[in-house]
Amino acid sequence: MSVSPLAPAGFPDLPVIDGVRFAAVAAGVRYAGRTDVMLAELCAGTTVAGVYTRSATRSAPVRDCQDKTGGVDMGPAAFLVNSGNSNAFTGKAGDTSVAAICDAVAGAFNIDASRVFTASTGVIGEPLKHERIVDRIGDLRDALDPAGIEDAARAIMTTDTFPKGAGAEITVDGTPVRIAGIAKGSGMIAPDMGTMLVYIFTDAAIGYRDLQGMLGQLTDRTFNTITVDSDTSTSDTLLVAATGRSGADVTGNSDFATALESVMLNLAHQVVRDGEGATKFVEIRVTGAADDADARKVAMSIANSPLVKTAIAGEDPNWGRIVMAVGKSGAEADRDTLSIRFGDILVAEEGWVSPKYLESEGADYMKRQDIVIDVDLGLADGVATVWTCDLTNRYIEINADYRS
Amino acid sequence: MSVSPLAPAGFPDLPVIDGVRFAAVAAGVRYAGRTDVMLAELCAGTTVAGVYTRSATRSAPVRDCQDKTGGVDMGPAAFLVNSGNSNAFTGKAGDTSVAAICDAVAGAFNIDASRVFTASTGVIGEPLKHERIVDRIGDLRDALDPAGIEDAARAIMTTDTFPKGAGAEITVDGTPVRIAGIAKGSGMIAPDMGTMLVYIFTDAAIGYRDLQGMLGQLTDRTFNTITVDSDTSTSDTLLVAATGRSGADVTGNSDFATALESVMLNLAHQVVRDGEGATKFVEIRVTGAADDADARKVAMSIANSPLVKTAIAGEDPNWGRIVMAVGKSGAEADRDTLSIRFGDILVAEEGWVSPKYLESEGADYMKRQDIVIDVDLGLADGVATVWTCDLTNRYIEINADYRS
Repeated sequence: MSVSPLAPAGFPDLPVIDGVRFAAVAAGVRYAGRTDVMLAELCAGTTVAGVYTRSATRSAPVRDCQDKTGGVDMGPAAFLVNSGNSNAFTGKAGDTSVAAICDAVAGAFNIDASRVFTASTGVIGEPLKHERIVDRIGDLRDALDPAGIEDAARAIMTTDTFPKGAGAEITVDGTPVRIAGIAKGSGMIAPDMGTMLVYIFTDAAIGYRDLQGMLGQLTDRTFNTITVDSDTSTSDTLLVAATGRSGADVTGNSDFATALESVMLNLAHQVVRDGEGATKFVEIRVTGAADDADARKVAMSIANSPLVKTAIAGEDPNWGRIVMAVGKSGAEADRDTLSIRFGDILVAEEGWVSPKYLESEGADYMKRQDIVIDVDLGLADGVATVWTCDLTNRYIEINADYRS
Repeated sequence: MSVSPLAPAGFPDLPVIDGVRFAAVAAGVRYAGRTDVMLAELCAGTTVAGVYTRSATRSAPVRDCQDKTGGVDMGPAAFLVNSGNSNAFTGKAGDTSVAAICDAVAGAFNIDASRVFTASTGVIGEPLKHERIVDRIGDLRDALDPAGIEDAARAIMTTDTFPKGAGAEITVDGTPVRIAGIAKGSGMIAPDMGTMLVYIFTDAAIGYRDLQGMLGQLTDRTFNTITVDSDTSTSDTLLVAATGRSGADVTGNSDFATALESVMLNLAHQVVRDGEGATKFVEIRVTGAADDADARKVAMSIANSPLVKTAIAGEDPNWGRIVMAVGKSGAEADRDTLSIRFGDILVAEEGWVSPKYLESEGADYMKRQDIVIDVDLGLADGVATVWTCDLTNRYIEINADYRS
């Protein structure tokens, strides 16, 4: 599979996070010879916060992680993730698989099982051959490497065409603090609460309650603002591990929150840039709505409209379909106060196409790879920005042929 | 453009409705030489009821029809519909176009303008060259024909690949009563209240209040149960004209309601069968939900999921994606009471794949043209059935290239 045309030039140089070591192996979970299991070992004292999919049919590992998040044990911890099989809708056997993997990691790494957080991503509804993972726990232990984050990012890919990483370094009261994160996801992307699989590591010191609160707020502004295909995964998981090894306490520190948000938004954008079949990266800004909730409704209605997304794929400046998507959103809207821009080009205002608009300018703009659609509802101060990609034949090909 | 593989064998023989005459012309609204305007002339005393899109950006003709529906004048009436241009998001000029057309019909046919109901379907946001239609009103008058309904059905097609008609004949107290209807639509189909363009004619006698009440109920069970692409049109219009010429009063008559529902459901199914790029006709039955509203949420979540629709296009019995769509619907659901069937084949139950299920049987079933997906939530008595089609490369091709 060729790499998305929207991919960054390469995997970024990420800071090493003191207290975290990574390992990855090819366990043959679904395909032989493909690196498909990653483990992150976290030192004692690490705070773990998490947000998860709200799907009513969420997977066995998601349910297990939810039970464990916020626990009081502060011994060493681990994240273990496999690709190839999501262990979702696998009945009681799914719970058995999660327990078997957690117990194996706990034994091999001398960690309490309540501190082992697993995730699985891939096909839904087929039993996870967990023994293939359990058999390789010793190899994972032998392969631990503080600089192994890129291999970890590769191990969790499914239909992804590139590994996704982002990092930040700030100084808190003269002490350097580092953040490094990885993510996977390119289809079944319409996060609700958490999203896809995302793992972020930092050497900052912060307690569970503060980190969890910060994470919830930042998720709404980052991962919850993207959509590829409006389909919400049964496995969406976002975990943040703060080892405290930098010695810098970041409780209530706005610089840290800003740095963490930038890492989260960067990873979220990379997920959109790897949207299945994507050829365009699209930012949708809505202003002037009755309130922020209405602005979000309009933005998501545009971002999820197959007719808008196919028009963008065809480089057609079809603002009529944007009007349609505004109209169906359920948000308050008035034809006569609505205005639409492609980038800086005013397309429509006062209930009609702008007299200054030239179709040729719109058509030229749509040839760009990164596109901004700006909709002002002209009613009040509600705003929202979301990101999506176009809908192409390649999306159909990938998904009409996924399991074969 | 080739005809949908799901199309019926041909346009049905529809009963002639006493009191209704049809005409169609090629007015060059958008393309030269394509029949694109139809008119239905309705005799004095005809009751007209209508339901319309709830889009906040609905078109000028929809707003005009809404104002006129339920008026007290019972003189002769007319429906005029053009394809090629939707006259939506065309500012004040859109209202001017509607008024010009209504006035021209009123003058030529000696009808009060308040009894002229127009509709426009096609591209959004471009001015309607209404003078092209006005110039042909005389030709429409000269072409009136009680048997001209098939030409009328052809005149309102846009990306439709076949004209859609359905009819019924019943006997009320010994008197024959006839119903004949036409519809258009194949993209931007996720009706909300009314749907697409649908015109139904009957010689039954019934007052406005009763006909409108019946129409609202039946719309929820017919046109509001279909979706092609989750995008709601700015122009959806459904009008029913009852001329009374049969002499049979059908107020409160359940046989008439049943016959009208069968015509509406038949037309709704034809719209799905002409869904842009469709190769499969899919019925989704949900039972056992907490209530009917939850059942509908689940059914529509499945019907609108791009991942479910692409799997069907690929003839992949991917029930995992159905589980995903149940989970994201927002309805109450429990993994362990959920069961899924493809036709009569039990696929999943008790939170996992059924031990009796053979993937080969599921794969054979998915090769059919008409597919039934049955989901029982196992919670209570809520039920819903909706209809949709698959999502194919052809949908992308049609919509990435619509305006060129």
